[in-house]
Amino acid sequence: MPSPRDHEVRDRVKEQESFDGQVVNCAEYADGHRVGDVSLPDVSEILGAERPSRFVWIGLLEPGEELLRQVQGEFRLHDLAIEDAHRAHQRPKLEEYGDAIFVVLRTAQRSEDGRIAFGETHLFVGPGYVVSVRHGASRPYVEVRQRCESAPHLLRKGPGFVLYAIMDFVVDNFFPIVDDLEEELEKLEEEIFSGNYRRETTENIYDLKRDLLALKRAVSPLMEICNRLTRFDSQLIDAESRPYFRDVYDHVIRINETVDNLRELLNGALEANLSLISVAQNEVTKRLASWAAILAVPTMVAGIYGMNFEFMPELKWAGGYPMAMGLMLGACATLYWRFKKSGWL
Amino acid sequence: MPSPRDHEVRDRVKEQESFDGQVVNCAEYADGHRVGDVSLPDVSEILGAERPSRFVWIGLLEPGEELLRQVQGEFRLHDLAIEDAHRAHQRPKLEEYGDAIFVVLRTAQRSEDGRIAFGETHLFVGPGYVVSVRHGASRPYVEVRQRCESAPHLLRKGPGFVLYAIMDFVVDNFFPIVDDLEEELEKLEEEIFSGNYRRETTENIYDLKRDLLALKRAVSPLMEICNRLTRFDSQLIDAESRPYFRDVYDHVIRINETVDNLRELLNGALEANLSLISVAQNEVTKRLASWAAILAVPTMVAGIYGMNFEFMPELKWAGGYPMAMGLMLGACATLYWRFKKSGWL
Amino acid sequence: MPSPRDHEVRDRVKEQESFDGQVVNCAEYADGHRVGDVSLPDVSEILGAERPSRFVWIGLLEPGEELLRQVQGEFRLHDLAIEDAHRAHQRPKLEEYGDAIFVVLRTAQRSEDGRIAFGETHLFVGPGYVVSVRHGASRPYVEVRQRCESAPHLLRKGPGFVLYAIMDFVVDNFFPIVDDLEEELEKLEEEIFSGNYRRETTENIYDLKRDLLALKRAVSPLMEICNRLTRFDSQLIDAESRPYFRDVYDHVIRINETVDNLRELLNGALEANLSLISVAQNEVTKRLASWAAILAVPTMVAGIYGMNFEFMPELKWAGGYPMAMGLMLGACATLYWRFKKSGWL
Amino acid sequence: MPSPRDHEVRDRVKEQESFDGQVVNCAEYADGHRVGDVSLPDVSEILGAERPSRFVWIGLLEPGEELLRQVQGEFRLHDLAIEDAHRAHQRPKLEEYGDAIFVVLRTAQRSEDGRIAFGETHLFVGPGYVVSVRHGASRPYVEVRQRCESAPHLLRKGPGFVLYAIMDFVVDNFFPIVDDLEEELEKLEEEIFSGNYRRETTENIYDLKRDLLALKRAVSPLMEICNRLTRFDSQLIDAESRPYFRDVYDHVIRINETVDNLRELLNGALEANLSLISVAQNEVTKRLASWAAILAVPTMVAGIYGMNFEFMPELKWAGGYPMAMGLMLGACATLYWRFKKSGWL
Amino acid sequence: MPSPRDHEVRDRVKEQESFDGQVVNCAEYADGHRVGDVSLPDVSEILGAERPSRFVWIGLLEPGEELLRQVQGEFRLHDLAIEDAHRAHQRPKLEEYGDAIFVVLRTAQRSEDGRIAFGETHLFVGPGYVVSVRHGASRPYVEVRQRCESAPHLLRKGPGFVLYAIMDFVVDNFFPIVDDLEEELEKLEEEIFSGNYRRETTENIYDLKRDLLALKRAVSPLMEICNRLTRFDSQLIDAESRPYFRDVYDHVIRINETVDNLRELLNGALEANLSLISVAQNEVTKRLASWAAILAVPTMVAGIYGMNFEFMPELKWAGGYPMAMGLMLGACATLYWRFKKSGWL
Repeated sequence: MPSPRDHEVRDRVKEQESFDGQVVNCAEYADGHRVGDVSLPDVSEILGAERPSRFVWIGLLEPGEELLRQVQGEFRLHDLAIEDAHRAHQRPKLEEYGDAIFVVLRTAQRSEDGRIAFGETHLFVGPGYVVSVRHGASRPYVEVRQRCESAPHLLRKGPGFVLYAIMDFVVDNFFPIVDDLEEELEKLEEEIFSGNYRRETTENIYDLKRDLLALKRAVSPLMEICNRLTRFDSQLIDAESRPYFRDVYDHVIRINETVDNLRELLNGALEANLSLISVAQNEVTKRLASWAAILAVPTMVAGIYGMNFEFMPELKWAGGYPMAMGLMLGACATLYWRFKKSGWL
Repeated sequence: MPSPRDHEVRDRVKEQESFDGQVVNCAEYADGHRVGDVSLPDVSEILGAERPSRFVWIGLLEPGEELLRQVQGEFRLHDLAIEDAHRAHQRPKLEEYGDAIFVVLRTAQRSEDGRIAFGETHLFVGPGYVVSVRHGASRPYVEVRQRCESAPHLLRKGPGFVLYAIMDFVVDNFFPIVDDLEEELEKLEEEIFSGNYRRETTENIYDLKRDLLALKRAVSPLMEICNRLTRFDSQLIDAESRPYFRDVYDHVIRINETVDNLRELLNGALEANLSLISVAQNEVTKRLASWAAILAVPTMVAGIYGMNFEFMPELKWAGGYPMAMGLMLGACATLYWRFKKSGWL
Repeated sequence: MPSPRDHEVRDRVKEQESFDGQVVNCAEYADGHRVGDVSLPDVSEILGAERPSRFVWIGLLEPGEELLRQVQGEFRLHDLAIEDAHRAHQRPKLEEYGDAIFVVLRTAQRSEDGRIAFGETHLFVGPGYVVSVRHGASRPYVEVRQRCESAPHLLRKGPGFVLYAIMDFVVDNFFPIVDDLEEELEKLEEEIFSGNYRRETTENIYDLKRDLLALKRAVSPLMEICNRLTRFDSQLIDAESRPYFRDVYDHVIRINETVDNLRELLNGALEANLSLISVAQNEVTKRLASWAAILAVPTMVAGIYGMNFEFMPELKWAGGYPMAMGLMLGACATLYWRFKKSGWL
Repeated sequence: MPSPRDHEVRDRVKEQESFDGQVVNCAEYADGHRVGDVSLPDVSEILGAERPSRFVWIGLLEPGEELLRQVQGEFRLHDLAIEDAHRAHQRPKLEEYGDAIFVVLRTAQRSEDGRIAFGETHLFVGPGYVVSVRHGASRPYVEVRQRCESAPHLLRKGPGFVLYAIMDFVVDNFFPIVDDLEEELEKLEEEIFSGNYRRETTENIYDLKRDLLALKRAVSPLMEICNRLTRFDSQLIDAESRPYFRDVYDHVIRINETVDNLRELLNGALEANLSLISVAQNEVTKRLASWAAILAVPTMVAGIYGMNFEFMPELKWAGGYPMAMGLMLGACATLYWRFKKSGWL
Repeated sequence: MPSPRDHEVRDRVKEQESFDGQVVNCAEYADGHRVGDVSLPDVSEILGAERPSRFVWIGLLEPGEELLRQVQGEFRLHDLAIEDAHRAHQRPKLEEYGDAIFVVLRTAQRSEDGRIAFGETHLFVGPGYVVSVRHGASRPYVEVRQRCESAPHLLRKGPGFVLYAIMDFVVDNFFPIVDDLEEELEKLEEEIFSGNYRRETTENIYDLKRDLLALKRAVSPLMEICNRLTRFDSQLIDAESRPYFRDVYDHVIRINETVDNLRELLNGALEANLSLISVAQNEVTKRLASWAAILAVPTMVAGIYGMNFEFMPELKWAGGYPMAMGLMLGACATLYWRFKKSGWL
């Protein structure tokens, strides 16, 4: 009798192999301790046993449709949730399907060229299981798993705690990004107030605005998600776990506020930039006008003494030329001094 | 006894013919399967039979007043709803009339000249029937009907599911339009940051703004409609169907957010444009001032040596002319170098 | 015993005459049909009879204080409501006084100089009566009365239906005004994008903004009024009449949205205008700079050959003059070509 | 035994004298009629008698700390309320302390230099008493008292009605101020569209903005106060008095809306101003460019004929000079005509 | 048997010493009076005794992790709250953990360079204890303690009153800062309207904006905190204490409103600045144009009489030169007078 099962197992192992790289981790936990790895097809049996202190935690990385269908079968997930998980490009949300919940989070990473790359994590959390599906830019959740496994007294709380741990991890990863953007804004401020008006400044302002907008879109729906989780009335998240979600909520609010703050400051910076360009324009025009006047006066004087009238007594004087030159220099000096005094030069 | 009915049928067929093109489709469904086409005048009889698993699905295209009156009679629709359906130019809304609901949706299509053309779809959904009335720019719903007919296990849910299918279709048709507008914005960004300030850029920004505003008006009321449908407490939409409307709701929110995002980015782009024009203006003024100075200096020197004083020793020197030219060239070169260094040229 | 009453009646008739022009209409309705005209002093008797299917509908035009006091006495209206009706310059509102309601509406008409003129209509609606008081710019309600009288099956619903009919009339009169403003905006857009920057454009934008603001103030409070009326729990408006108020509500929302839309577009147009003026300024500066350079170069060359040095070999050459002219022309042509190429000219 | 009381009274009278000017009025009312003046120290006895139809109404003007302490003792007012009344610089608010309420209102007066001066009125209203404390710019409440005393049928309602009368008075005093600001805006509009861009215009816009902001701060909290008073469930304000507070509420909303309207129009005026300055700048630049070109052309021609080449045939011609002058004039005329035609001049 | 306890005490004293400077104060209060200092390790015993009229008030200054862990042990505080208190950089918030509450406040002080420095105060308030943890810029709470100790009738209310006293102190410290910022704005206004457009003005506007934004972030969450505390249903804050929190709430609203007001005024000032720069630019351009014209005319005339035509009769005239000079002067004077009249000079 063991033999047919053995065969089955072998088949499954084979099947499993074809999902190499897609299934990052698949383990069973009991009383907060890792019991061991399980193969995906055994999951439904484990779930069927209904041992409340046990749960399965599976981590998938950009799974194909076939794998998702298998996961759906094992956990009896809703069609629409699976469709969302496959398509990605969802907005952060929390949906309830019976006693299970489906959470979509956006993750973010600074790419090497300084822009922010976004990814998505989809979480299926139900009685006895957590399935995490990772797409795009995101740090792997192995770190979360290790941290959880090193605190069995917390992991014992079940899938709800895993949900918290992953959300906390995702949210905390936004902090360094926000810090980077704060630094960028500071650089922009320096650039703006240095009195050097370059096109790149405007372009950088626009890029920063775009990044902040994208960040806002990734973070702000988390507020409602966390808020709902802190008031969640289900066996998945017990009353004792709520302060943890409130803590995540608090972090989300802080990130959100910082982003809003940066946006307001950026708007202020943009206005300051425009206003300083206008001031600079004003100054340039004044200097232009001053020098035009200083050069125009001797040109006019020279023009006058270049006239060909026969009777121009000055032309005959021995001191005529020095006098004319003196006149020109004097006029220029007077103008220069007056423009200097009134701040035009 | 069959003969009088035969006559009746013939009369109706005749009547029906006059509505050619206006009645696109008129079929009866039982247990999710198409039973067959029905003629409009038979509808009231079918509805009267009250067989819960059966319903009639009629598709009309820009119907005239006469046809609408007949439909009203068959389904006992409310005067005000029929008036709305006839007049078109409604905003998207959901109204309840007894146990029936009246839904107005705005549809959109990209016309060939790149502008967005809007249409309207009015849906009357009640126990045992769905009537869809299509006006203006919209893709035909034959596709929806085919998709529904190929999934009888879902179509079995009744008129509520048909409502979902049409709304899903309408909403999903907004995605390619939003994508197009995103592309347009990207083109505009390139244009703006390329340093080429043309009137067309401003005009395109304004046109895009206008399109986004129109799109927003078409999409944003859908949020409340979907939200109400997900919480609807009637026999039309059973609890099992709600996740489907929640899914449509989710898509609507995504479109709405993308439109808001585009609008914010567009505002940013407009500001960037204005700021870059100011920077460019500044640069032009600086170059203008620089060249004016460079040309004014030799003109002044030439003017001086063009004076007609009898005693100007330089004029008699053999090296006077080269000296003057050297002076001019030197002054110009010095100025050029200084302007270059300070970034004015 | 009839004689004293006769006297009374005669006295009243006399009194009535002094209100000529102020009392436009005063009729009694039974079961939706006009029973006949009544004189104001008889109203309290009719109301006292408490025949539920009967009601009195009075139309006043800019009534004096004396007439209002009399109306107050007949219908037992609240002091504060009468004070409001007399003073006019109220904002649209709905107030309940016991089982009666007091509604203030703002009416609008396009005056001949193109500006919008506003008026006010005050409605006292209670069991068995409707009193409408019209001030300022407004179309007369005779039309509403005729329409109501031609539909006795609706008018039978009583004073609540009359309220609906007047509100519907008032709201529908806003549509042509909004359409006119839409046209005006289109004209402004054409003006802005035609590249002709006139002061009048800015003034027209400001005027349109002002009109839209005034319209908004007249229309937006109607939303809350209609909304409250659709949820009104009183004998004045029965459940069957609610869809009618919902219909008015819908129209109000449409007008309101269109006004908001126009305001947003107008803001966009204003920004576009400013941005285009900047672009134009830039272009003018560039052309100015180009032509200044083109003219300055030959002036400089001519200045050089106008110097009076004794030893300037070119001056002696036979081809000196053509050479100089060629030099000038060549320089000018080169500059012209370069400016043309770089889009400055 | 009457003697000690006599002494007491005498002492009190003395005490009272030291508050001269601070206690404006202190009277007892019964059934809506003024019974007579009372001295402050007798108040607690009157209140103790608990005669529901009687109440005391005291008016204070910028009272010192000592007087306030005495008032507090007589009426048993809360520490925090007295502190507020002493410090002034509160924002408008309504606070409940047991069965008494404490209301802070901001009053406004146009000062002679055209700016708005603000004052504060603090009202303590409890069963059997009204204490009004007036600070800063405000019209005296003697007028309110007279108006109330002339309508005993209303004053009979008790302290709640006095509260209404004072609030109505305060709110109605805002109307002329708002009217003045409306006029100021009109003057500004004229100034802006007259085409005369002065610094004072900008300064006036800013000052008006500042005034509107201050007015808004004084008026907008009144909305919530009135709203709460219309829904107040206490013996101080009976159901019959609520329409009166609703009336005040209505006035507050109107003032608030007008202020908002003015602010929006002012923003529009500011934008129009900026846009017109840009248009004017454009026009100035065009004219500058035109005249520069018109003057540069003859200068260049003159320069050419001022060259000293030996072989310049034109110089020898008898008609050379007129020809050159003709050339110059022709060029200038042509340019002038072209600039005129294209609207640059 | 006393000896081991003595040892224990000695050990604790030692331990305590290592926290020198971190534990600012640690005292026990009974019935509103200070009973005496307690050492931290004795606290749990005191709390265990459960004497309702007694409580411990501990003040910490930037405590290390070790001290916080000890405090956590003594008071049984939640992990997450202690983590927050250690990390600082929290936003103002109020969190409930069982029957204890955790409050985070932001404190502010004007630093010597004129910028605002922010600090944080974390308060753990539970039955029988108050722990305050101070970080960064803040005035010490010794003053609060003294004020509380001098009012035993209030301090008797317990930890809830201490919470109020500290919050009141923190909030009142914001007033002088807001006053400083108001003064700064006034200085900026003067600068702007003085007609002197310097870069520093723009930079100062931006800095003020930044400060206001930071202040807003520190103050605005206090509104919700105070609001919740006034409606708090726990034994910590009894009904009698609520008016005190309402008073703090009121102060917070006033600070918040003033900050909002300043921000609006600052925006207005920024706009005024931009508009005035434009006006100034316009004036500069006009003056530039005027002087350019005045200088260009004599230059042109001189150029004409510098032409070398043989037949120029004026050149031979004795009065030719004066005539030319007169022509030039006349033209200049005429131009000067016309520019002056039209306000260009």
